[in-house]
Amino acid sequence: MPTFQFLPFLALLGTLGFLCVVFTGFWSQHWRGGFAWDGSTKMFNWHPVFMVTGMLVLYGGAVLVYRVPSSWVGPKLPWKLLHAALTLAAFFLVVLGLVAVFGFHNAQKIPNMYSLHSWLGLAAVLLFSCQWLMGFATFLLPWSPAWLRIIYKPIHIFFGSIILALAMAASISGINEKLFFSLTNKTVPYAKLPPEAWFANSLGMLILAFGLLVLWALAMPAWKRPESESLEARQPLLH
Amino acid sequence: MPTFQFLPFLALLGTLGFLCVVFTGFWSQHWRGGFAWDGSTKMFNWHPVFMVTGMLVLYGGAVLVYRVPSSWVGPKLPWKLLHAALTLAAFFLVVLGLVAVFGFHNAQKIPNMYSLHSWLGLAAVLLFSCQWLMGFATFLLPWSPAWLRIIYKPIHIFFGSIILALAMAASISGINEKLFFSLTNKTVPYAKLPPEAWFANSLGMLILAFGLLVLWALAMPAWKRPESESLEARQPLLH
Repeated sequence: MPTFQFLPFLALLGTLGFLCVVFTGFWSQHWRGGFAWDGSTKMFNWHPVFMVTGMLVLYGGAVLVYRVPSSWVGPKLPWKLLHAALTLAAFFLVVLGLVAVFGFHNAQKIPNMYSLHSWLGLAAVLLFSCQWLMGFATFLLPWSPAWLRIIYKPIHIFFGSIILALAMAASISGINEKLFFSLTNKTVPYAKLPPEAWFANSLGMLILAFGLLVLWALAMPAWKRPESESLEARQPLLH
Repeated sequence: MPTFQFLPFLALLGTLGFLCVVFTGFWSQHWRGGFAWDGSTKMFNWHPVFMVTGMLVLYGGAVLVYRVPSSWVGPKLPWKLLHAALTLAAFFLVVLGLVAVFGFHNAQKIPNMYSLHSWLGLAAVLLFSCQWLMGFATFLLPWSPAWLRIIYKPIHIFFGSIILALAMAASISGINEKLFFSLTNKTVPYAKLPPEAWFANSLGMLILAFGLLVLWALAMPAWKRPESESLEARQPLLH
């Protein structure tokens, strides 16, 4: 389906991403008791909101910066700075999301880092940290050599998608396990599909749709920035 | 990272896929009491084995058929038949996997289709059925018109990746929820990371790695079959 225009697609994606954030906040506010920063489940409630906003929606927007057609002409530096700023903002939200869940676990004496969800999430966050630091050192520091930029660029692009896929897998397994934890009331268990279960299951499907559309947009050859700059950078090495 | 050769990559992928199947079988056999077809949890144990084997590993191999360089020359029909046969075999395993879980649920009076895992899995299976039938009707029935093949081909390719991504999300959330269900023993709960938890968490990471490599291989422009045939098919419409 290569005939879509990028900007209308981005508007659709923005709407989907906005819905993901609003749904996550509404779930925590309406069914899970709202928000606080006190070691209770209300502190935990910030975890999904920060993670979906940072690691998924803001990250998803940040990785598409070079797909905006106006980024293909003129100087690349402003777009690099925008990409670095958006991913850094996403990273700060992710750190807050980690503080929210570790703070809640530690206050309630719940062990950390045992579930598959937590392994996937930590893998995403660790790779994201390396990715940001390596990206900064390679593409923004002016003394980074051209050969390093050429070698590292496809690796950076590859791991950009991998990190998003890990974040999607962590979100899906996180929503699934949170519903099993929370909907344990004998009269309205998860298995009886109360409104909260319908709502949060739909949120999971929405998150998957958002992430898959970002991955698909990243893979679309027609939307990739033409490689003129790296060709120029390569020439001095070839001649 | 576009410089890899396809066939060595396929060997690596085959090894990973084989490990996914063996790990899933070993988990059920060693920690979950083995296999039976009697409505007990031993019947359920077939569910992850059939699903990982069919919906993930066999499906993952089947979608890569047209990436084998020798499929690019000579008649396309044998490769189409291979693709249809492998996906059909995968589909039969998936149906067995569904019978295993519904049979277990119904025998034990456990509700069906409430968790996010089950929604994702059913979405994958329903899309997979439509995909197979549409693919058969469009690309194998000789009286299917050329314009239909041209319009439907990119849609078929797009949904091929979407279905695999849904299967991956369903596998990850399924392993996560199964561990929360099973490791409830107060002395060795999931939260204390017993050997079974380490093993099944690692299986989840392995499944994600396998699926992501397949999706990445599908998206690699250099590994795509040249579009000569569809260009020929397009010409009569253009002239």
